[in-house]
Amino acid sequence: MTKFDEATQAIRVDETTYDVCLDPGYSIGGPLNGGYLMAVLLRAVVDASPHEHPVTTSAQFLRAPVPGPARVRLERIKAGRTAAMTRATLIQNDTSFIETLVTTATLGDVVPDWTDGPSAAMPPIERCVKLPDPKPESNMTLNAQMEMAFDPPTVAWLDGRPTGRPEARAYFRMAEPQDPDPYVLALAVDALPPVVFSAGARGWAPTVDLTWHLRALPAPGWLTLLGSGRMISDGWFDEEVEVWDSAGRLVAQCRQLARVGRG
Amino acid sequence: MTKFDEATQAIRVDETTYDVCLDPGYSIGGPLNGGYLMAVLLRAVVDASPHEHPVTTSAQFLRAPVPGPARVRLERIKAGRTAAMTRATLIQNDTSFIETLVTTATLGDVVPDWTDGPSAAMPPIERCVKLPDPKPESNMTLNAQMEMAFDPPTVAWLDGRPTGRPEARAYFRMAEPQDPDPYVLALAVDALPPVVFSAGARGWAPTVDLTWHLRALPAPGWLTLLGSGRMISDGWFDEEVEVWDSAGRLVAQCRQLARVGRG
Repeated sequence: MTKFDEATQAIRVDETTYDVCLDPGYSIGGPLNGGYLMAVLLRAVVDASPHEHPVTTSAQFLRAPVPGPARVRLERIKAGRTAAMTRATLIQNDTSFIETLVTTATLGDVVPDWTDGPSAAMPPIERCVKLPDPKPESNMTLNAQMEMAFDPPTVAWLDGRPTGRPEARAYFRMAEPQDPDPYVLALAVDALPPVVFSAGARGWAPTVDLTWHLRALPAPGWLTLLGSGRMISDGWFDEEVEVWDSAGRLVAQCRQLARVGRG
Repeated sequence: MTKFDEATQAIRVDETTYDVCLDPGYSIGGPLNGGYLMAVLLRAVVDASPHEHPVTTSAQFLRAPVPGPARVRLERIKAGRTAAMTRATLIQNDTSFIETLVTTATLGDVVPDWTDGPSAAMPPIERCVKLPDPKPESNMTLNAQMEMAFDPPTVAWLDGRPTGRPEARAYFRMAEPQDPDPYVLALAVDALPPVVFSAGARGWAPTVDLTWHLRALPAPGWLTLLGSGRMISDGWFDEEVEVWDSAGRLVAQCRQLARVGRG
């Protein structure tokens, strides 16, 4: 069991309740990463489902939970032959922190009937760059869990040269060797810096709604994360993330609506 | 009050319950159109919210309700200063038919800080085509509520000449003159024929999850619906719909994950 598997464990209490322990190692400067929290919720949902894979997850982020014990409360909405639907809520101190609607199903290992190519081209990994290690006092513990290699222009905002459009692209894998699975993908779809940083914005960009679809089970190896956005307006922005696996297959699609930070 | 306003009315019973009457005029050959049902749900959500606009709606479609009386049950999840979150469920005969998580907020009339262009070009409306009227026995009553003018190649599947990729593009307005508003947009994001028809598939394509974001209040006039998809695999497909208004602004973004019909 990897550290990530351990940090996302959900222990069954009864049919509708799971105990979890939120790990301080997934902090993004105070709040815990939303993708990590989704992975925790999905462990409980899949354990209680007749199906193996979380094919769609819609999450609304209400508040930022703190590391430590928490619960996942499940409500089975529909259990069909092809798909089951569950409402899952992350609860800490009797308060709801994340509300999700999840559809589980079982994906086969098939060749797609039709697929488009990636939405953007990536340079080879040896031409990509790592971000500098965060300062210890920043409490960005998440960075140590993952290895990311960025398409250089999309992180030039770090040197004061944003590209002027919302974008972020990187190769991604877990720091502790682990083949990607749906829970790693839950982390991956929310692992990029907010795409608005590249458009010149700063500050914590709280997600309001994040919906992602698991499209195929990822092959071992690096994942490619392609992040973009269509509009920044009135304090809101959309962030679109496509995840491709090492075999060149689209394995996840994600869109969030988030608030622009007050940098 | 237009026929559409009437057909989507939600009458407050108490804080968490609204009576609605599902109109047979929005049928797509038996089932009622999902966009129409979302509009009904959103009427109740917004009426009970401190905010005016449904900025994000995530809907999971469990079963197909029939025309006639139904209820919307609300659960207020969080009421913040910027945004409020509500769970809304469509209920008929004590059974849940649609589960939604909705964020409401109040959008201003502002110029976007940054916006991309449309994802596809449309020919002028006079070069677009209407679909033939459905046969009366098909019970496709929805078509009479809307006027749509399609980009010709994206409906060539009707003549046995699908383009081979998932796509559908059309100008859209209500048949009864009405300025577009968030409820009309709820209808619009689910108004195109399934994009997989253009890739050669047939048959009813049931939506599993539909998430859409209201990005701006639409200007009066025609809307432009740009539909596409990234992958068809293992019986699942994604459908992406962008809605642009007559002033050239991106007003809604929608993605659904749906099942390919067994045509």
